[in-house]
Formats: sequence, structure tokens, C-alpha cells
Amino acid sequence: MREFQLVDTLRSRLNCRRDDTRLGIGDDAAVLSMPAGRELVVTTDTLVSGRHFPEDTSAFDIGYKAIAVNLSDVAAMGATPAWVTVALAAPVLDDDWCQAFVDGMRAACRACPTNIAIDIVGGDTTRSPVLTITITAIGQVGINQAVSRAGARPGDVITVTGTLGDAAAGLTLWPERRHASTEQRWLIERLTQPTLRRGSALVGLAHAAIDISDGLVADLGHILAASGVGARLAIDRLPVSQTLRGLARDRHERRRYQAVGGDDYELCIVLAKADVETLQERLGCALAVVGEIVVEPGLVLEDADGQPVAVEALGAPGWDHFGD
Amino acid sequence: MREFQLVDTLRSRLNCRRDDTRLGIGDDAAVLSMPAGRELVVTTDTLVSGRHFPEDTSAFDIGYKAIAVNLSDVAAMGATPAWVTVALAAPVLDDDWCQAFVDGMRAACRACPTNIAIDIVGGDTTRSPVLTITITAIGQVGINQAVSRAGARPGDVITVTGTLGDAAAGLTLWPERRHASTEQRWLIERLTQPTLRRGSALVGLAHAAIDISDGLVADLGHILAASGVGARLAIDRLPVSQTLRGLARDRHERRRYQAVGGDDYELCIVLAKADVETLQERLGCALAVVGEIVVEPGLVLEDADGQPVAVEALGAPGWDHFGD
Repeated sequence: MREFQLVDTLRSRLNCRRDDTRLGIGDDAAVLSMPAGRELVVTTDTLVSGRHFPEDTSAFDIGYKAIAVNLSDVAAMGATPAWVTVALAAPVLDDDWCQAFVDGMRAACRACPTNIAIDIVGGDTTRSPVLTITITAIGQVGINQAVSRAGARPGDVITVTGTLGDAAAGLTLWPERRHASTEQRWLIERLTQPTLRRGSALVGLAHAAIDISDGLVADLGHILAASGVGARLAIDRLPVSQTLRGLARDRHERRRYQAVGGDDYELCIVLAKADVETLQERLGCALAVVGEIVVEPGLVLEDADGQPVAVEALGAPGWDHFGD
Repeated sequence: MREFQLVDTLRSRLNCRRDDTRLGIGDDAAVLSMPAGRELVVTTDTLVSGRHFPEDTSAFDIGYKAIAVNLSDVAAMGATPAWVTVALAAPVLDDDWCQAFVDGMRAACRACPTNIAIDIVGGDTTRSPVLTITITAIGQVGINQAVSRAGARPGDVITVTGTLGDAAAGLTLWPERRHASTEQRWLIERLTQPTLRRGSALVGLAHAAIDISDGLVADLGHILAASGVGARLAIDRLPVSQTLRGLARDRHERRRYQAVGGDDYELCIVLAKADVETLQERLGCALAVVGEIVVEPGLVLEDADGQPVAVEALGAPGWDHFGD
């Protein structure tokens, strides 16, 4: 398949649905109209085959995840995603693969809880020995309303959406997925098709937020560093799905999946304790209080008895793409 | 080098200079402020080592070119670039390499003729067996003023900025560059550090435009297809540098470099003949009239005597990243 034919394929399957998309895929650049009173939020993430997803992942799941990890970053800023561009480098691309990849991207866009569609407005394809996908997502947020990592204050509570550890458990099940039970398949799907949250719910309530890509301990650490504070984290209060609870009965294993496992793409949100209920209603999903922000720098993990747990004791950390 | 250290390195060397960059590298996403009365122009391009640049290209030149090819797309829309994000996938990255890469990116941003600085506002780094860089560039243009590929009309003239063929000639000299003459080194530099043009000059004058990445014949073809018109191209009127004229004395070889060679990143601009002089003044560079738009579809190449020249006779076409 030649480069320009592939762009044509993308274009034919990507009808733009937003009124503010003036010009979509197929020219030198897209042209997008911004409403007054809004700021842009822009993020870029790359996925490399064999590093960010198993090499035998389906084209649909690759497309889904590539979009999801970027929309998750936009949500963590309190913003609403509007547009994405995709850059695809691949060894070979046939029509079926491309169509499934595009279908996965579109499914992720549709799974994102926003009021207006998300348009795929730009694409570049090239050949490379290694399948590599880079997505740039562009969102909108009210002026001065973006939620950074830097606003956590002592006394705030630390919350997380949904449940943690499912994706990490799903990754360990991946090699045996053809023989997986229904419960195991659910965990694997949490890895390949992470749940997306309504970022706009954070505005006016969240003091700081981040999406959990590298594991809660690592990602919360970024909030602490940016905010110049510390935290106490109740490791046995991390929200756990019924499925994970049923399958990972060993407490140590479950803690590792939940605290350092990564790939959940749930949100870690720091806010005033009094606002937790309001935020939960706005998000429309469970929001668990898992710790609190303290003045003293550093992250202290505590078990159900309030006893400290060493991070090192949890085992392998989340993804670190240069840390082998 | 660990991922987060690398992002820190990028951040420390990338002080944002624009007032409208609210939040740069280092959070989940950048936050950018848009002035009223402007539309966004967004483009994404990937460069793969060994495909878009020789594997032994310097880090500085890779950074320069990755930025330049994207800013060139923004200019071809009649827009002014404002922000870029960079996604870097690489086998190994040391401090020296990263610093030279960042210096190259910054040099390209500074070489772009704009009134305000261009900020690098986002970055993602990951390990990959193949060095791959994806840049997304975001520019601004007045409402309804973007220049697409679709506005060429019969009777318009076809113009190109600067000179053509230098980069393609430079590529053939690459293997022997250590022993290159001053003239040869100039051609090689045209390949590694393409000249950037003032895209905002096109607004209100250009009917259609494209940047010449894949060779004039291929890229003009995109304008013709999008506009539903044809063209006559005077192949011996393509602007040639003194250096290329001196080194490529064979007419056939020079035609090939100029018409199908690619990688020049000059602009091909279609406009009314009466506006050529005004546009040249606004651009501040040479603008050569090389052909005209006609009703009849198809591209006809003509020599100095008005005789047709077959495209196939020119030899190897420009880059086609899936066309091996």
C-alpha cells in the first residue's frame, strides 16, 4: 500500500463531525476553529510495539489504546478532547489492518465521555521496521481552568477513579489469553481498552491531577514533586475490582498490581475532602479516597493497620521506557 | 538515561518564550492561549532513521529537519507556526545526543521567519530499536484565511520559492561528504537544513499552496487533484542554484533533481499572475513562475522549446514511503 493511498483510506473512514473542524485530513495541515474563552490543551504520546503493547495485539486494540492514552492525558488536565492527529510508522500495512486500526481509534473517541464528537484531523504514515504510533490530542478548557500537577496542598485528600491493578493483572494473563476465563478476559480488556473519564468534571474542584500510566506510586510522585509536598497512601484502601479480588488472592501480588502496576489510565485527583462527593457525582464513576497530602516531602505507604510498607517490597515498578 | 530525566533535560533547555504559552513541557499536557479571530493549523510528520534521513546524520541535523518539515507544512497553509510537540523513540540516548538534538530543533524554530518565537511545549520519549521522531506543529491563521490545496483555477500561474533540486543533489553527495568541496557541502546543507519561508505572506494572494517534500511533480499533482484542474509545467524554467548548475552539468540529471527529487521544502504557490510581484515582496525571497493552471486534467511537462517531456523519462521519483 502506498503512502497516499493509506491517507486516502484514513480520510474516507474519518468523516469529521465537528462544526469547528474547518479542514480535516488530506491537506498540508488541518484547520480548526477555537471558541472564544477557551484555552488549548495539547499532549503527545508514542506507543511502540513490544514495549507499550504486546507484539501480537490486534490492530483494533492498538488503535483504541493509542487514542485512549492521549485522551486520558487531556482528561487529567480537566479538559475536553476535541481533535487528534495520528502518525503511523509500520513495516507493512494492508487494508484490513488499517481499517481495524481506524475502527479502534474511532471506538476510543466514542467511548470518551464528551458532549461533542472527537475528530481525527491529521495523519502521516511511513514505513519503519518497528510498528510505532504517535498520537497528538488537542482539547479545550476554560481560561485559567486547566488542572496541573502542581496544586496539591497539605490536608487535601488523594483520590482515584474506578479500580486499580486490573490492567497489570491483565498483562500477566496475556500469554494465556486464548484459554482465558470470562473474568480473565475482562482484566485483559482493561489493559487493551482502558476506561476514559470525563475530565471536564475536575474544573473548579481538583487541585492537581494526573492519569495513572506508570503506576500510582510513580504518578502520584509526579504530583508531589510538582507541588512540593508529601503524601501518605493507604495501600490497602486502593479500589479493587471484584474480578481482581477473586483472581489475585495473594495480598502482596494484588498490592503490586495496584500500586506500581501501571496501564490503568484511571485518574489520580487531589482535592479538598469536602468536594469529593460533588466530584464523584460530576464524574459519574466511583471515586475512592486513598490517602492525604502532607507537608513533609516523600511518599509513605501504609497498610490497613497504619504500618509503613516499603515501596521496594512491592516488587517490579511500572513501565519505565528507558530504565531497563 | 531514564525517561523522566530526559524530559527534564528537554524542559531545562526549552524555556518557553511566548506569552500565550500558559504551561509548557512537564505536565500531562501543555496549555496554550489562542487570540480571538484566529484559527488553528495543525500538522504531524514522522521521520524514520534510514528512510527520511541517512542513519549517520548528526543529532543537530535530525532535530533541525524534524522541525523544519513540519513548519514547512504550516507555512504552506499561509499560517504562522506558534508551538510544536516532539515525540522521540530511540535505541539509546545520551546527554550529548539529546542536547545536540534539542539545539537543532531550536535552531530550526529560530530560522523560521516569524515575528514571535516558536515554543516547544510537549515531549514524549520512549525506547525503540529504530530512531523515530514525530513532530506536531500548531500554527495560527486568520479566520477563513488558510490556504488549502484546492483553490487553483485555470489561468493561474504556478510559482516556486527559492531554488529546486539542491537537496536531491545533496543526498547523492552524502556518502562522500567528508571529502566534499565547499559547493558540495552547501548542497548537502540544503538537504539537512531546508530553508523556511514566511507562510503568512500567502494570505489573500495564494489560491493554493503545498510544500515540496516529495518532488515538484508529485506535490503539484496533489494541488491539481484537490483543485480538479490540470497544469503545464516549464521544466527548464525551474529555478536552479548557481551551485547545482555548476555541479550537475547534465541536463537530464538536473531535471530529475529539480522536478522529482524532493526534500527541498520550498513552497509551490498557485496565484493570479498579477499578484506575483506583490507576493515576492512579501515573502522576501525569489519567486519563479514555472507554469500555468489549465482546465484539462493532467500535468504536462514542457521543455524550453515547448516540446512535451515524459515524466517517466526523468527517472527515479521522490520519496514514497510505501512504494519500494
